[in-house]
Amino acid sequence: MEQSRLPIGIFDSGVGGLTVLHAVNDLLPDEQLLYLGDTARLPYGTKSPASVQRYATHAADYLVGQGIKLLVIACNTASALALDELRHRLAPIPVIGVVEPGATAAVNRSSAHRHLVLATESTTSQLAYTRAILRLDPDAIIEELPCSLFVALAEEGWNTGSIAEAVAGQYLDSIRERSRAERPDVAILGCTHFPLLQGAISNALGPGIEIVDSATTTARAVWQELAASNLAAPDDANGGIRLIATDGAARFARIGSAFLGRKFAAEDIELTDIHPADKGN
Amino acid sequence: MEQSRLPIGIFDSGVGGLTVLHAVNDLLPDEQLLYLGDTARLPYGTKSPASVQRYATHAADYLVGQGIKLLVIACNTASALALDELRHRLAPIPVIGVVEPGATAAVNRSSAHRHLVLATESTTSQLAYTRAILRLDPDAIIEELPCSLFVALAEEGWNTGSIAEAVAGQYLDSIRERSRAERPDVAILGCTHFPLLQGAISNALGPGIEIVDSATTTARAVWQELAASNLAAPDDANGGIRLIATDGAARFARIGSAFLGRKFAAEDIELTDIHPADKGN
Repeated sequence: MEQSRLPIGIFDSGVGGLTVLHAVNDLLPDEQLLYLGDTARLPYGTKSPASVQRYATHAADYLVGQGIKLLVIACNTASALALDELRHRLAPIPVIGVVEPGATAAVNRSSAHRHLVLATESTTSQLAYTRAILRLDPDAIIEELPCSLFVALAEEGWNTGSIAEAVAGQYLDSIRERSRAERPDVAILGCTHFPLLQGAISNALGPGIEIVDSATTTARAVWQELAASNLAAPDDANGGIRLIATDGAARFARIGSAFLGRKFAAEDIELTDIHPADKGN
Repeated sequence: MEQSRLPIGIFDSGVGGLTVLHAVNDLLPDEQLLYLGDTARLPYGTKSPASVQRYATHAADYLVGQGIKLLVIACNTASALALDELRHRLAPIPVIGVVEPGATAAVNRSSAHRHLVLATESTTSQLAYTRAILRLDPDAIIEELPCSLFVALAEEGWNTGSIAEAVAGQYLDSIRERSRAERPDVAILGCTHFPLLQGAISNALGPGIEIVDSATTTARAVWQELAASNLAAPDDANGGIRLIATDGAARFARIGSAFLGRKFAAEDIELTDIHPADKGN
């Protein structure tokens, strides 16, 4: 098959990356998308760097084995920890993480050079956004703030309402209460779960802080890479989505539908085993 | 070594079981306790039954290899899914889960025969408490209610305050608003994280509902089993705690201290690999 007709591979530890899949599908409806949620290992966010790198390698190898033309690491933790390794391993297949596109968009939109990164604890502890932003804007001032409870809220479906507002307030009130000069002017949603809570986050931050969502910025990076590499699907191609998970199809379908923005069922998900060495007793 | 001088093995997917360790240590301060947190695989609660059974078997085999006189499955999910299998596998070493002691205590304390089980979604979906309670009281009426966000609150350390109260209210207000005749008179904390939120849960439930904490009831079951099997530590024995985790000692120490009820550091935790087949690339 021509390279350009192959699907784009997208992986995450679970359902969070479906926000990225959603954004890629919106922007590039003619592309075939192959999504792998490594639900047997989720969450990556609390695992050690070595474990995350190993899991990411397994996931990438599986998708390459299926035949893909480009890989998206739709997980902030894995992007922070495994992007360089996977680029080296998969070359010449292009690999795009979610951190670089988010950092680029934030630098483009900030005039005050003050950035706020909201993410899980494991992502903030890696300072991946800080390093990516500083490469683009050495004068930037960056704060990374762990907001782990947003993940649980998104998975519970409590994306709006008084509890979401209260949790967002607990994390972010101290930002809003600062003087204008000391406030960031851009906030990066550095976790694929957080776009679901954008309303509550925006309310808690108050006016004057633009929110950058790494799902839509990553989709744009995919589009640019396909154009640059001459890999965009030809005009007669039909887009589509194929969903694969490593465990728990029922839960994946129930929670994932909100992330993908459309209803799907457990029967729409293929279950696979990408870690054969782990299956013995 | 005499059997009675061997440690008691306790395992959980992460830090939650430290509430059980805490209760066992309080009740039986002369016992050596060997705790294994399988943090490389946490949470068990969202994994498939087959995966949980495999992980539980690995954890049990590891502890047996270290030499233990009794095993406590300090994890509701693993207790629900792997107790029978582990009893068979480890015989004659006694194995105690957290579900049976919690169910026994609830039946003993209920006069209305109406039980409420609060747990994670994976535990409630197994209906393990319902089955255990019905074996003891066939007339019981049991409701199992998933309260997944309590886990995230406990791990974030937000155990008290307005957000904990609001989350507990969101899950439990409909219980409190019922007529007295339709309310349960006992609520079982069917997740090892939930004792940290007992205050908020109790406030949300309102008066007249007794809370049964499976940590303390499991400790009592351990005490009874040691007495029945003649395995209690001799009078000259010195109690102590040894902590082992499979990943992420720093996070384990930081979050776990609240669960154990005493401060400990990453250096107090031994890191081990109980799944060698999973470590290759």
